[in-house]
Amino acid sequence: MKKLFKMALCVVLVGSFFTAAYAQFAKPEDAVEYRKAVMTLIGHHFMQIAAVVKGQQPYEKNAVARDATLVETLSKLPWEAFMVPGTDKGDTKLQPDAFKEPSKFSEDGKRFEAEAAKLVSAANGGNLDAIKSQFGEVGKSCQECHKQFRAR
Amino acid sequence: MKKLFKMALCVVLVGSFFTAAYAQFAKPEDAVEYRKAVMTLIGHHFMQIAAVVKGQQPYEKNAVARDATLVETLSKLPWEAFMVPGTDKGDTKLQPDAFKEPSKFSEDGKRFEAEAAKLVSAANGGNLDAIKSQFGEVGKSCQECHKQFRAR
Repeated sequence: MKKLFKMALCVVLVGSFFTAAYAQFAKPEDAVEYRKAVMTLIGHHFMQIAAVVKGQQPYEKNAVARDATLVETLSKLPWEAFMVPGTDKGDTKLQPDAFKEPSKFSEDGKRFEAEAAKLVSAANGGNLDAIKSQFGEVGKSCQECHKQFRAR
Repeated sequence: MKKLFKMALCVVLVGSFFTAAYAQFAKPEDAVEYRKAVMTLIGHHFMQIAAVVKGQQPYEKNAVARDATLVETLSKLPWEAFMVPGTDKGDTKLQPDAFKEPSKFSEDGKRFEAEAAKLVSAANGGNLDAIKSQFGEVGKSCQECHKQFRAR
């Protein structure tokens, strides 16, 4: 009983990290569609930078800075949509672990946001080596979250 | 023949409005998925403002400014994805008219971008009546484009 209470308290406290909660989604499917859209755009713009990091595209400072800024802006958006109850079912890759360990999920999300912000700084700095290094850190933060919370 | 040449020239000139062209999409389906994601997010954040404009949600200056800024940021993104040849077919609402009248399509897109930027100014100003008025202008620019270029 005590354990259950502790878990409930933890959910409430962690829930407060997700500003405005689920109010903005009329239906659970809307939350799934929204977060998928965010992740599609993050993936797209991150892969634009990947192409430069891998030498497949020439390095253009403004283009990389634009993509990094978009990734950072988008990094802040999907979290409350992931926390809508029941949305680990249906047409989604979200794993039930996100609801069982919301504090770890939140922590992973915050790390991604922080690494994405640092990528903007590196991109604005215009040093390709620094960009490559920070690109790797962002990638690690993606993987850290995906390995536990995203179905393969 | 002369008419054909004029049309081709027009396509080339208008194409130059869409920066970076289609280079960023490996497959036509990627462009469709990308632009749908952008439109989903634009729709979501615009409707968040709509709820305030309609009095369904209380007016909070920061929340409206955040949503308006996101709409403006997103307003710049989808256009080249719409111009990938052949993507008026398949799982899309894009009408073939977008390829037949690219200058009108581009003009409509630019108008939406400009109206969205004015909505950010209104939102930052914090006057709800000004926000309501400019919200209407953005809505008109959506409709203007959708009525010709988006299937019902």
